[in-house]
Amino acid sequence: MSDRRQISMAVVRRLPKYHRYLLELISNDVDRISSKELSEKIGFTASQIRQDLNNFGDFGQQGYGYNVKELYNQIGNILGLNETYNTIIIGAGNIGQAIANYSNFSKLGFTNQAIFDKNPKLIGLKIRDIAILDVEFLEDYLKKNNIDIGILCTPREQAQEITDTLVKNGVTAIWNFAPIDLQVPDNVVIENVHLSESLLTLTYRLNEPKLLHDIKK
Amino acid sequence: MSDRRQISMAVVRRLPKYHRYLLELISNDVDRISSKELSEKIGFTASQIRQDLNNFGDFGQQGYGYNVKELYNQIGNILGLNETYNTIIIGAGNIGQAIANYSNFSKLGFTNQAIFDKNPKLIGLKIRDIAILDVEFLEDYLKKNNIDIGILCTPREQAQEITDTLVKNGVTAIWNFAPIDLQVPDNVVIENVHLSESLLTLTYRLNEPKLLHDIKK
Repeated sequence: MSDRRQISMAVVRRLPKYHRYLLELISNDVDRISSKELSEKIGFTASQIRQDLNNFGDFGQQGYGYNVKELYNQIGNILGLNETYNTIIIGAGNIGQAIANYSNFSKLGFTNQAIFDKNPKLIGLKIRDIAILDVEFLEDYLKKNNIDIGILCTPREQAQEITDTLVKNGVTAIWNFAPIDLQVPDNVVIENVHLSESLLTLTYRLNEPKLLHDIKK
Repeated sequence: MSDRRQISMAVVRRLPKYHRYLLELISNDVDRISSKELSEKIGFTASQIRQDLNNFGDFGQQGYGYNVKELYNQIGNILGLNETYNTIIIGAGNIGQAIANYSNFSKLGFTNQAIFDKNPKLIGLKIRDIAILDVEFLEDYLKKNNIDIGILCTPREQAQEITDTLVKNGVTAIWNFAPIDLQVPDNVVIENVHLSESLLTLTYRLNEPKLLHDIKK
């Protein structure tokens, strides 16, 4: 770990956005773009864009700008999209089903291999040809299959136990939709999607002008 | 607007997390807690917690700590949970259906009033007793009903047009699941949940040690 430079999460979170805008440019047949033009589209300053990309190497040429397709591929590689990923979904409730049904992820190189639940009414059903398996067999399944990412869509109460099983059996990335902060070893990465917290951030901002006015008084 | 102090988004995004942890303490019958104990649970420093809360008023007492239930209610009020919200969902695909089915939001005071889609196969169906309406009637519906939050679950292509209709008809908060940065006037607040970007952040971090090692070489 000693030769790692850590890139700040703020930079990391901008990368998928660059990726998305560059794909849009490609679909509009744009071949090259200056950091200034890209800046106008994406809403970051040109110097921010240059700084962000400089973390990862030399992209673009003075006076020419960026080759859109090349930059798209390079950012894709930085994001790990030069590889493919086997995923499983644990929890076939509302969110688990939505994720299982979402076809866009397969285009990006993610293949969902299995879905697990404990509800006997769901076990045996299929979502997009993937059978819902009994979560009792999760550990056994993980020992026999190489899974890169666990997509955790269980209720809060089961989330840590399932996480422990995933981690114990070699899964090092968890995409977590359960409303809980999971405890994992340092080598495991977690990305949370906390929907309720996102919604409460919205209501905060909706009420902020009134709130701050009241505090001031 | 001149008497507004802006609270940083980093602080705002921590508030729902405080709220979640305090609810957990309440359900574990904890009556009061020091900022130090809260800090150990939630993973922010005690001074960070005091600073965050000081933005909004005087909470807690020297030597006593925080009254858990009081602080929970106060943070709830800051988050706007002393009010109730009428929502509509536009787009009854995977994510739209998942949100419509999610009962937790109603416990927080959000009432989903209608769902809109353009797919004739979906129009007329019901999700939790709420009928899916033809999106053609969205504008008409908004003129007759008081809607606080539009939950945008359409494909990217329709998202801006629907947003324009929402904004034109008085909706000032949008919870956006479409993979696009929406253009809205300053008085409209938007909270994005960009699932693909979240997933790509995960694969970035999964590959980061190798990536940064390669760059260094």
